[in-house]
Amino acid sequence: MSSKPVALIIGAGDATGGAIARRFAREGFIVCVTRRHLDPLQPLVEQIHSVGGVAHPFACDARSEEQTVELFTRIERDIGPIEVLVFNIGANVRFSITETTERVYRKVWEMAALAGFLAGREAARVMLERGRGTIIFTGATASLRGGKGFAAFASAKFALRALAQSMARELGPEGIHVAHPIIDGAIDTAFIRDNFPERYALKEQDGILDPEHIAEQYWQLHCQPRSAWTHELDLRPWLETF
Amino acid sequence: MSSKPVALIIGAGDATGGAIARRFAREGFIVCVTRRHLDPLQPLVEQIHSVGGVAHPFACDARSEEQTVELFTRIERDIGPIEVLVFNIGANVRFSITETTERVYRKVWEMAALAGFLAGREAARVMLERGRGTIIFTGATASLRGGKGFAAFASAKFALRALAQSMARELGPEGIHVAHPIIDGAIDTAFIRDNFPERYALKEQDGILDPEHIAEQYWQLHCQPRSAWTHELDLRPWLETF
Amino acid sequence: MSSKPVALIIGAGDATGGAIARRFAREGFIVCVTRRHLDPLQPLVEQIHSVGGVAHPFACDARSEEQTVELFTRIERDIGPIEVLVFNIGANVRFSITETTERVYRKVWEMAALAGFLAGREAARVMLERGRGTIIFTGATASLRGGKGFAAFASAKFALRALAQSMARELGPEGIHVAHPIIDGAIDTAFIRDNFPERYALKEQDGILDPEHIAEQYWQLHCQPRSAWTHELDLRPWLETF
Amino acid sequence: MSSKPVALIIGAGDATGGAIARRFAREGFIVCVTRRHLDPLQPLVEQIHSVGGVAHPFACDARSEEQTVELFTRIERDIGPIEVLVFNIGANVRFSITETTERVYRKVWEMAALAGFLAGREAARVMLERGRGTIIFTGATASLRGGKGFAAFASAKFALRALAQSMARELGPEGIHVAHPIIDGAIDTAFIRDNFPERYALKEQDGILDPEHIAEQYWQLHCQPRSAWTHELDLRPWLETF
Repeated sequence: MSSKPVALIIGAGDATGGAIARRFAREGFIVCVTRRHLDPLQPLVEQIHSVGGVAHPFACDARSEEQTVELFTRIERDIGPIEVLVFNIGANVRFSITETTERVYRKVWEMAALAGFLAGREAARVMLERGRGTIIFTGATASLRGGKGFAAFASAKFALRALAQSMARELGPEGIHVAHPIIDGAIDTAFIRDNFPERYALKEQDGILDPEHIAEQYWQLHCQPRSAWTHELDLRPWLETF
Repeated sequence: MSSKPVALIIGAGDATGGAIARRFAREGFIVCVTRRHLDPLQPLVEQIHSVGGVAHPFACDARSEEQTVELFTRIERDIGPIEVLVFNIGANVRFSITETTERVYRKVWEMAALAGFLAGREAARVMLERGRGTIIFTGATASLRGGKGFAAFASAKFALRALAQSMARELGPEGIHVAHPIIDGAIDTAFIRDNFPERYALKEQDGILDPEHIAEQYWQLHCQPRSAWTHELDLRPWLETF
Repeated sequence: MSSKPVALIIGAGDATGGAIARRFAREGFIVCVTRRHLDPLQPLVEQIHSVGGVAHPFACDARSEEQTVELFTRIERDIGPIEVLVFNIGANVRFSITETTERVYRKVWEMAALAGFLAGREAARVMLERGRGTIIFTGATASLRGGKGFAAFASAKFALRALAQSMARELGPEGIHVAHPIIDGAIDTAFIRDNFPERYALKEQDGILDPEHIAEQYWQLHCQPRSAWTHELDLRPWLETF
Repeated sequence: MSSKPVALIIGAGDATGGAIARRFAREGFIVCVTRRHLDPLQPLVEQIHSVGGVAHPFACDARSEEQTVELFTRIERDIGPIEVLVFNIGANVRFSITETTERVYRKVWEMAALAGFLAGREAARVMLERGRGTIIFTGATASLRGGKGFAAFASAKFALRALAQSMARELGPEGIHVAHPIIDGAIDTAFIRDNFPERYALKEQDGILDPEHIAEQYWQLHCQPRSAWTHELDLRPWLETF
């Protein structure tokens, strides 16, 4: 069991989660990364190890209370005190209202909101004892605005924002920093490259978000002194309409 | 099967839902009212009948897709075309984040958001064919602001607001009016009378909301011509801090 | 001096102000209407008289504290108690930031915000003594959102919204209803007809706002009982993107 | 004439403006600082010089278009290219609506909004030619919310926020980063120390904002790559209710 602090990234499967993990590892954090299955986490873990960092992968269905509680218990018992939680599961889908199935509406909420609640609550439990910690929930354009085709996704992201606000107001005076950065724009990922090539072409003029820059912002949020905390901020490429 | 239009009120168990049902019945609507169990709806139905209105009670667990689809099918087949849907299920609870169980977080969302989605989607299906209709989702203070102790409730009400916004943007240009009135204050109910007597005492100076006044506003929202629709408005007693 | 209540409409020169004046006159209010010069008010006054209403025109530069104070004094002294104030001066301009002159930035603010403050304050003075009254400030899309080319106009409309909010929070518990309807769409006016013919063509499918419908909403805001006041609502044609 | 970039801080008279000036000076910027009179700027300028920085004081009434235009002309001609503009003039006053004079309402707007427009427009002019630059407008709690006693101050701060939003949407795609940090809490200043001693006592537990921390955030906003810009963020002590 280490005395080094732990940064736990729930939803480290995408480019953003990976970049955040690397950023905190670089600063000496033991990084615990989760996604539903273990295998796809290996490249990230090896990458962190190869530059001298420490990373532990966990398979965890973040929608499961049992698995989430178990995850926090194991980390706190075997690895170290969780100083930072980043909840980074997205679930972007687009369907017209009549084509949105109950299954989709529920699943998107379970991934993007319920899982955030479970992780946030477990983090609050261990952080409240220590009177410190940072909890960051990743927001999106749909956190602020419902739109045609976004009934399911916006419902889930609005819910996550309500959770972040409620926790910030409840836990701030207990020394826990809760933040909700809003990522408003396409991110440099394989998904965007393969599905939105025109959008991806903006990369050459910095028109899409670099995961490393998002990770930098998350790191700076964690570094803020408690006399000057940010709860919400937007991150957006210069070319993005808003 | 009547040619008279139907107003369907999901969650007609409380004072507000009852007042809305009476208001639309008074205007000649066939009123369909639902709650989980049939018995408590009888007084409302009798009250409407006694003044010459038409009301049909339905037992329906609004969280169930099957029951909700069946409800819409039966009404459209046996009673008349649904012109108005009012979704009025609340689920106000207050727990600190660490004392919020997974069961509570999920149940509050199922009642206040998922059920709204199911009813809203089914209403959209029948209204889209006719290119008209009114859908009203009841909002609350917690629709706009998360707060200490309100992680579960605000998450659900934010989600409902996202649903209302998304549906308004998608269905407005199809002729369907989607509105989200925000009730910001205590309502004159047995619950407030019994649990918040000091608050209830404000009734004498109009310091709490009268369900009849809320119902009047819902009626006026329905009456708005399509050239001047309101999507969101607040309703608040004059003495209420905001 | 009449015992009948007065509705004062500042900025009654456009179609909306005129419709509001007619609406309140129809309900038995003595209507006082102002704009900078007297002549253009004559048709409106005659129209109201011709259907049995009472209307008094006033030339008043609403940006002048002296003229505004004098206006309120004369009405309260010679005509009747001001029960309703509608502040309806717009000042929609569009310039890129570098082409916005100091003169424009200042003038737009003087017309849309300073004049609102002057009228609102004078109304508060007379209404506070009586513990009642309604004050309505007309908002616009730019009240909620700055945009390219709208630095001057949005600055002024944001300022007016801040005034409305501040007055609502201060004067609500004193019995004065302060409301801020947001008109989000083109209005059926000569200006739109002449300058935006494509937009105006939407009129045939109710795609632009009818001033009579706006006026109806203002009347209903005034009629709300103090147990259920609305501070802010949007009004938008069904075809309008938002 | 230097090739080093200039950071211009309008309203460098308070603790925050001073800290921002020192922060940019430390990074090698030539710092130009303004307030209405020259003398009170001397200690700041000497402080910066004493640690090897470069600072130029300017007396400038920021409400004057002539003086503001002249300021930009002189700096660009004699000192260097303005890379960063920080507009930091506050004008916090509190009066009930009936006690707010026209002079106060106007003056607060001239200081907090008109001056921001003048400086922002002049900065846009020089930055547009170079396709780069950072413009930061200091916001406050009253930028988001009107309140009892804040009609004048909130009107001005809302206006400034509208300006910032409009400029961000217009100038972002031209390469100019416009940001609007919202300072939500008391700052460690002589004013708070002398007038709100109970509040000031919170300093011992980091309950008020340290100007150095605010300055750090402004510096980081400037450093953001254009693929990930923040337009708005809040800064608030952990103990602050919001």
